[in-house]
Amino acid sequence: MNIGFIGLGTMGRPMAEHLQRAGHALHVWGRLQGGSVSGIEALVALGAIRHTSPAALACHVDIVCTNVTASADVEALAHGPQGLVEGLAPGSIHVDFSTIAPTAARRIAAAYAEAGVDFVDAPVSGGGTGALAASLAIMWGGKEELAPRLNPIFGVLGKSIVRVGDVGAGQVAKGCNQMVMVAAIAACAEAARLAQASGVDFGRVRQAMLGGSAGSRVLEVFGERMANRDFTAGVEARLHHKDFALLLDEAARIGAPLPVAAQVEQLLNALMGNGWGKRDTACLLGVLDGRE
Amino acid sequence: MNIGFIGLGTMGRPMAEHLQRAGHALHVWGRLQGGSVSGIEALVALGAIRHTSPAALACHVDIVCTNVTASADVEALAHGPQGLVEGLAPGSIHVDFSTIAPTAARRIAAAYAEAGVDFVDAPVSGGGTGALAASLAIMWGGKEELAPRLNPIFGVLGKSIVRVGDVGAGQVAKGCNQMVMVAAIAACAEAARLAQASGVDFGRVRQAMLGGSAGSRVLEVFGERMANRDFTAGVEARLHHKDFALLLDEAARIGAPLPVAAQVEQLLNALMGNGWGKRDTACLLGVLDGRE
Repeated sequence: MNIGFIGLGTMGRPMAEHLQRAGHALHVWGRLQGGSVSGIEALVALGAIRHTSPAALACHVDIVCTNVTASADVEALAHGPQGLVEGLAPGSIHVDFSTIAPTAARRIAAAYAEAGVDFVDAPVSGGGTGALAASLAIMWGGKEELAPRLNPIFGVLGKSIVRVGDVGAGQVAKGCNQMVMVAAIAACAEAARLAQASGVDFGRVRQAMLGGSAGSRVLEVFGERMANRDFTAGVEARLHHKDFALLLDEAARIGAPLPVAAQVEQLLNALMGNGWGKRDTACLLGVLDGRE
Repeated sequence: MNIGFIGLGTMGRPMAEHLQRAGHALHVWGRLQGGSVSGIEALVALGAIRHTSPAALACHVDIVCTNVTASADVEALAHGPQGLVEGLAPGSIHVDFSTIAPTAARRIAAAYAEAGVDFVDAPVSGGGTGALAASLAIMWGGKEELAPRLNPIFGVLGKSIVRVGDVGAGQVAKGCNQMVMVAAIAACAEAARLAQASGVDFGRVRQAMLGGSAGSRVLEVFGERMANRDFTAGVEARLHHKDFALLLDEAARIGAPLPVAAQVEQLLNALMGNGWGKRDTACLLGVLDGRE
């Protein structure tokens, strides 16, 4: 199948490469003109076709994937000057893997309706490691009837594929995912701080907890970083900080009380204020004990 | 081996029965004189020997286990009138499975020193289900040299056995465990509330999250109760409320900042104030959406 891919960063590049190796004809376009294009060049070396604009790319593909940073980036790619909508044929699909606001996803989908293009929000969880290992969790929102066309593509990229509901539902699930995950990181940091102040080794506390009702992937991964005091970024904390801004905006708009998430945001604010945004979110421990 | 067991409630009774079925001679004493003694009678029917006081029981055992509610209960059993210390021979061990304050555990241990009795704090995680299935996580604090005598007993009761450190360290780990677990329940409730307010089915959101970085035992167990809106107690919320009081007292004493735990305590206060203390802690969702 002819597949377009725009946004070839830490997540996008390995995802695009998996699609290419699975036998799809890959079409790419780079947003950074004159900037970093190493991801694109690597894919072109493997046979990808490079285009001069999103619209030009869109003329050659049945499905176009995007994986960028913010709501405005996706909107500009879809409906801005030389945007995808100018090239996509009726019946084609735009699958967005970015983490953006649910409302933005719904707005982009609505603006595609006249052109007969389907928009699908399909944010992922699992980070760079999950993208490389093709073990992402993909949580998507869009028309159920698109599943037979999407599943073979999602199956190349992830191991847990769940259609959550209509357009925007994927982003709601991703917001829930980020909230639950970062709250767990914060709670884990408090546990590490409590153990430390009690003169008890957190590495052993973590080991004891992993076997009980408090066991989680966060305790495994971020707990280990805290036990080793290794705050090298797996995921940069500034990205979680961005996710929380989205989340709490949305909660305010729809009237959902998120007291724990609000408290976690304050801790992320402290982390950012300390200038630690490019470190791993495990660095929330540093916020609690005042050490870098 | 002759083993004593005092505190035969939801947790203690199946634990004592596992020990008895493993071939140990079980000695029991009931705290509730004239009250509920069904646990004791069931064990006596299986061959357990019933005594008239903790001190009387203590004369016949190498190891005595307790599983009661509060720090004061354990202190009274050990050092109160007709307490265990009056009967235990030098070299014997008191293993306390209760969840109490780390300072209480250290105080009880110190008071045993002159009698040559070792005290071990060994709180467990896994609930009634884990006690029945002998799949508890046991996190213990005490002298490392006691491990060869304790491990065969712990092995009959649980599947994850970790010596966290010296006396009190087991309780520190249990405090961390409760904090991380209940914070995860609260975050899960917020996710359910956010999904609900967004018009998205939380059951599917939970399914999508289980495959990603937010996956946890809490999301499996408590998330399912929230998705089904089934607040029948697995663990009664009032017990978690008690745990948080212990935890935040200890944190204040040693100077450990626990901002997320403090916020979670407020939500537990709201739950208690609504009169829902005997329901499952999944009922935190009810605090957020004002429905029983």
